[in-house]
Amino acid sequence: MTQPDVGRIDGLTYPTGTAYMAGQYLPMSEARISVLDWGLLHSDVTYDTVHVWNGKFFRLDLHIARFRRSLERLRLSVKYSDDELRHILVECVRRAGLRNAYVEMLCTRGLSPTFSRDPRDAANQFVAFAVPYGSVANARQLKEGLHLHLIDTVRRIPPESVDPQVKNYHWLDLVTAQFQGFDAGAETVVIKDMNGNVAEGPGFNIFAVRHGALYTPEHGVLHGITRRTVFDIAEQFGIAVHSGNVSEDQLRHADEIFITSTAGGIMPVTRLNGVSVGNGAPGDLTQTIFRTYWEWHDDPAWTLTVDYDEAKHAQ
Amino acid sequence: MTQPDVGRIDGLTYPTGTAYMAGQYLPMSEARISVLDWGLLHSDVTYDTVHVWNGKFFRLDLHIARFRRSLERLRLSVKYSDDELRHILVECVRRAGLRNAYVEMLCTRGLSPTFSRDPRDAANQFVAFAVPYGSVANARQLKEGLHLHLIDTVRRIPPESVDPQVKNYHWLDLVTAQFQGFDAGAETVVIKDMNGNVAEGPGFNIFAVRHGALYTPEHGVLHGITRRTVFDIAEQFGIAVHSGNVSEDQLRHADEIFITSTAGGIMPVTRLNGVSVGNGAPGDLTQTIFRTYWEWHDDPAWTLTVDYDEAKHAQ
Repeated sequence: MTQPDVGRIDGLTYPTGTAYMAGQYLPMSEARISVLDWGLLHSDVTYDTVHVWNGKFFRLDLHIARFRRSLERLRLSVKYSDDELRHILVECVRRAGLRNAYVEMLCTRGLSPTFSRDPRDAANQFVAFAVPYGSVANARQLKEGLHLHLIDTVRRIPPESVDPQVKNYHWLDLVTAQFQGFDAGAETVVIKDMNGNVAEGPGFNIFAVRHGALYTPEHGVLHGITRRTVFDIAEQFGIAVHSGNVSEDQLRHADEIFITSTAGGIMPVTRLNGVSVGNGAPGDLTQTIFRTYWEWHDDPAWTLTVDYDEAKHAQ
Repeated sequence: MTQPDVGRIDGLTYPTGTAYMAGQYLPMSEARISVLDWGLLHSDVTYDTVHVWNGKFFRLDLHIARFRRSLERLRLSVKYSDDELRHILVECVRRAGLRNAYVEMLCTRGLSPTFSRDPRDAANQFVAFAVPYGSVANARQLKEGLHLHLIDTVRRIPPESVDPQVKNYHWLDLVTAQFQGFDAGAETVVIKDMNGNVAEGPGFNIFAVRHGALYTPEHGVLHGITRRTVFDIAEQFGIAVHSGNVSEDQLRHADEIFITSTAGGIMPVTRLNGVSVGNGAPGDLTQTIFRTYWEWHDDPAWTLTVDYDEAKHAQ
């Protein structure tokens, strides 16, 4: 899927793609931030991600609006208007020449000239980049379903500590669970909240299907835009959606399970902790939502088309 | 304290100092990591910090040992031996020419060549740097004491989510509290744990003194090496130390309060939520511990002297 540039000076291999930072468009191999940036040293940063499919951004305005809310909550400042943000993101994709892209915008607290510990002394840094489209699930997993483990030994960082609606990079709970899941033979994992209810996985929300209705966690999880799109699809099809506490039992007795993410869309889960979900194949309702989700990627009402031919700005 | 380099290509001003990464020693303005590094994008990184005072590292071996434990817990790998690590850190300080330095070593998950979401695909990245010594408290605050607020609206990320003994950059709870504290006129803040007990502040542990004994939180906080040094000093002076739950009430009725950090050492607190602590001046016991802490910085048993004159390696 990617065509890495080999042989950079640091010996690392980078995905293709284009980044924007400090007023410049750069190849991914050159997009670097200072090691003194509080985005690294305190994870004092927020972000949003959006994808481009067949040359079209999907629900970009929702992602930009959420990014604005996250920035405001963290008292971070980005100098670009929404129009300018859209332009930068489109330009990253256009310059990278990617028809299918994973696009991220982020803003860090930045660094203070004196390494002062007062976050008000730092100059906030905006970065955007477009890399080849990536997914939580690979092609086989999308077709046959993922093997997911519900991990019980680590709990999602609670909203009393970090507001999950402020999209954040506080992932050590999720990464720790990922390694435990890999040890147990899983392909990905979901963890619980502090109350023992099902929460979310590394970068995705989870849905259980039971008797034709959808159940998904509401509290202590990011309200993903793919999750919201599932709500919109469900409304169109007259499918009931219950957004609230989801117990381990409800997950274990689900007829179908799927996960949702900008990185992959609608992804079926066919094994939970080693046990088949339903008949062990992606379920009918999951497939209906999957198909509709991707059909909507052609709908001009939901998309913004990238013009790859027009060079709007010289570098 | 710092002499910033002005006018870098990115328009930012950096502290002086020397970094080590990818086999090279670099000025701080050139020490950058990829924006695709999971250290930034998932805060999938651990670190340790140590300081140099009057040309001597203080308790470096304890910091390296803790760094090793953190690495192991996160399944991160650094290729250097302890001797090599020591050499790199000394060399950063020597090349920077800093007699008083704040020194940090960190290891990120790194980036995967395909931007895969599997952390096992990433190449771990080690970075070290030495910058001019910085402190949580400035000179006036060290002398007169800090104005601290106990913030009640955000709780420290619990150990069920992220093990605080794995030194980590999950600081959004602390940064959020910092801004609330600034709004309230405080100079720094401490937050509570999920059970409502006193936890820690941004980069420091807290101690209350009552009737000649020390009280400090034990659970859900980093066991700092300055905190441990206070235990060692207390033992020498026959001062009782109670490490366990510390309530808001205990803090409010303390005779003295001080905070401890590698970035600043022993720092008196003389106002808590706008109310004087004790008689409003740094207490006797705090000052005894403060003096002893810095005296021990001259003790060869606790220190490693930097040889600034000898160029052990050509760059």
